[in-house]
Amino acid sequence: MLCVAGLILPSLWPAAGYAEDKDVLDYRMHIMHTLNEQSAALGLILSGAIPETNGAAHMEAIALTASTALKAFEPKVRGGEAKAEVWTNWPDFSKRMNEFARLTREAAKVAKEQGFGAAGPIIVDALTCKSCHEVYRQEKKK
Amino acid sequence: MLCVAGLILPSLWPAAGYAEDKDVLDYRMHIMHTLNEQSAALGLILSGAIPETNGAAHMEAIALTASTALKAFEPKVRGGEAKAEVWTNWPDFSKRMNEFARLTREAAKVAKEQGFGAAGPIIVDALTCKSCHEVYRQEKKK
Repeated sequence: MLCVAGLILPSLWPAAGYAEDKDVLDYRMHIMHTLNEQSAALGLILSGAIPETNGAAHMEAIALTASTALKAFEPKVRGGEAKAEVWTNWPDFSKRMNEFARLTREAAKVAKEQGFGAAGPIIVDALTCKSCHEVYRQEKKK
Repeated sequence: MLCVAGLILPSLWPAAGYAEDKDVLDYRMHIMHTLNEQSAALGLILSGAIPETNGAAHMEAIALTASTALKAFEPKVRGGEAKAEVWTNWPDFSKRMNEFARLTREAAKVAKEQGFGAAGPIIVDALTCKSCHEVYRQEKKK
């Protein structure tokens, strides 16, 4: 049985399209949160706090999720933690996001084929989150 | 540059092992949160709110993460949202977690090879989150 609220179809669908916008926002936040959770798990491994058994799988999950992220920003729905610059600078934003997907895919490949230990430096280079967040994210206070 | 706090090595390491226990807790929560975020993204697609373009990738990310989850519970560190039953009923818990990994792997394969549309029913059957959470999770109030 699926365990997420997302599966329950709304019985009332507001005419003004709010529900659709909310779905778009929720969807992209689920993707960005996944990147955050998996990067944090990987960070614990890279820092030596957790054994590296799952390292390559985390890197693969990040690469997969990175490949889904740009699509989630295509609808021009402002809000969440995205700055307006995501859409006003779309050529730069989409170029960076595609580069992020490419670099993480490459790091996942190295981790899978040559072992997680060998992939350390390429993993660190691939996770360019901060440089994009500085320009395109307005972090909400928890 | 890595963007997660997990990468910053603690400068003080408490003798009582608290930091290690906290790392174990954090690690498994990052994994379970990933499952939650990806299931929610998938739920939005299955409900028709979001186009299915990324569907197979989400299913693959869930399968990968499911394959990492059991390892994260092996250290017997209580806390977070895990009930004590995780460790007192370990044979049942680990059997269920392995079954979850197997079913999600199978669903990801169908989604990849036969298309996301064909995988709908097997995806719903694979996401058995609730039946386990009822026994092994004590959800914290947000």
